[in-house]
Amino acid sequence: MIEHIYTLRVMYPDTDKMGTVHHSNYAKYYETARWELFRTIGISYQSVEEAGFMLPVISMSVRFHKTANYDDILTVKTTLKAMKGVRIWFNYKIYNAKYELINDAETVLAFVNKHNWKPCAAPEIVINAIELKRKE
Amino acid sequence: MIEHIYTLRVMYPDTDKMGTVHHSNYAKYYETARWELFRTIGISYQSVEEAGFMLPVISMSVRFHKTANYDDILTVKTTLKAMKGVRIWFNYKIYNAKYELINDAETVLAFVNKHNWKPCAAPEIVINAIELKRKE
Amino acid sequence: MIEHIYTLRVMYPDTDKMGTVHHSNYAKYYETARWELFRTIGISYQSVEEAGFMLPVISMSVRFHKTANYDDILTVKTTLKAMKGVRIWFNYKIYNAKYELINDAETVLAFVNKHNWKPCAAPEIVINAIELKRKE
Amino acid sequence: MIEHIYTLRVMYPDTDKMGTVHHSNYAKYYETARWELFRTIGISYQSVEEAGFMLPVISMSVRFHKTANYDDILTVKTTLKAMKGVRIWFNYKIYNAKYELINDAETVLAFVNKHNWKPCAAPEIVINAIELKRKE
Repeated sequence: MIEHIYTLRVMYPDTDKMGTVHHSNYAKYYETARWELFRTIGISYQSVEEAGFMLPVISMSVRFHKTANYDDILTVKTTLKAMKGVRIWFNYKIYNAKYELINDAETVLAFVNKHNWKPCAAPEIVINAIELKRKE
Repeated sequence: MIEHIYTLRVMYPDTDKMGTVHHSNYAKYYETARWELFRTIGISYQSVEEAGFMLPVISMSVRFHKTANYDDILTVKTTLKAMKGVRIWFNYKIYNAKYELINDAETVLAFVNKHNWKPCAAPEIVINAIELKRKE
Repeated sequence: MIEHIYTLRVMYPDTDKMGTVHHSNYAKYYETARWELFRTIGISYQSVEEAGFMLPVISMSVRFHKTANYDDILTVKTTLKAMKGVRIWFNYKIYNAKYELINDAETVLAFVNKHNWKPCAAPEIVINAIELKRKE
Repeated sequence: MIEHIYTLRVMYPDTDKMGTVHHSNYAKYYETARWELFRTIGISYQSVEEAGFMLPVISMSVRFHKTANYDDILTVKTTLKAMKGVRIWFNYKIYNAKYELINDAETVLAFVNKHNWKPCAAPEIVINAIELKRKE
């Protein structure tokens, strides 16, 4: 299990007329957070695509506990939980500046060939980077 | 159980560099589809807010089966599954023009007081409209 | 000059905490409206890309007169003003249901080669479709 | 004239199927950049709204020179050019990591009363903060 902390500030257009962050935006925060986790183990998501792979989300489940507001500093705590076959599991917890849990989520992603979208085993650069991190 | 069919055409900015619809957009399609279901039973979501209520999403779960593309005509089949206490359950299935299942999802929403965000029973206009529809 | 009317309903996530449509969304409405104009002369923007071209926006100018709200029915009146060399000019006026002018805009787009992003003359299918429409 | 540098990294959902940043997103980058400029002179945009004012955009003009890509680090150079009566002028230049100009823009915003959207003179906290900064 590899953990990572990503921090962001809520932009104005991410709010809606309820006055709080529209729920669709959290999927964007999770995505950015997981690729920042990847970056800390030496992989950019860009390089994964350049190597001929893509990582679409195949399932996502979110529980919304509290609202977040414009200009809030949010902390996304991301956990790479597992990687097996073509799949990779991430968990997320988003906290506000008072360390209140805003929402938590899990996503499953699958490695696919960039050209034909066929599921395929994770590329070696990803497997090796994760192994290396785990041995630390 | 009340069902509704909503049709939309995918806009260019809803795609990402994978060439397909970014997964965060489906939450917007589900939302628009469920308020169109509401409209068919005589309630606009706008009128729910004007009556002093809001209906934030408290959980969402999605399984992504296939990708959708720019300019695709998508059909969202929405089912109002249940309403109990402060909660209301919706299911969604999105199909493309070949009637292939793109993704399916469920959301739970909660009625809250617009001014203090406290959970509260569904407003009578909503309860009555749903009852009326079920008796049809 | 070719004109076209496109109608849309404002989705909830297009609003922000001011309670009205966030100004960044109008660029999306203009874009959708101009490709719907194209469709009426027998061209889908998708087919332009499939023919090896893209049409990025190279300048945009907008004057915001009034706000639009959630669930408003908006009408985008689009005019294809001119096409010369690599460039094509569109004007837009967005009205609400009371026929009040919400905003007006103009965009300049340039035909580029899809593979190297080099500016290039408009493809014949586009030139011919526009000529044909003008002769009507 | 007050200047400010804001840096951001392009998120995946800000790209479209052309493979580059969709042009509608730059309005969001400008907006975030100008409120970060405000923050450096001691004002948060949140506090402007809390004081009973809002600052909607009344016109925007953009020239797009180059494209930006996923994961690019972009620098927004914002200039508060003038404030007179109810209006305030900002200019923006966005550069990539090679210091190539991606696009440049200007926006005019107007102070309005938050409750009735009537144009009104800038609040004293804003006027004073700008004066103070200019005297530096």
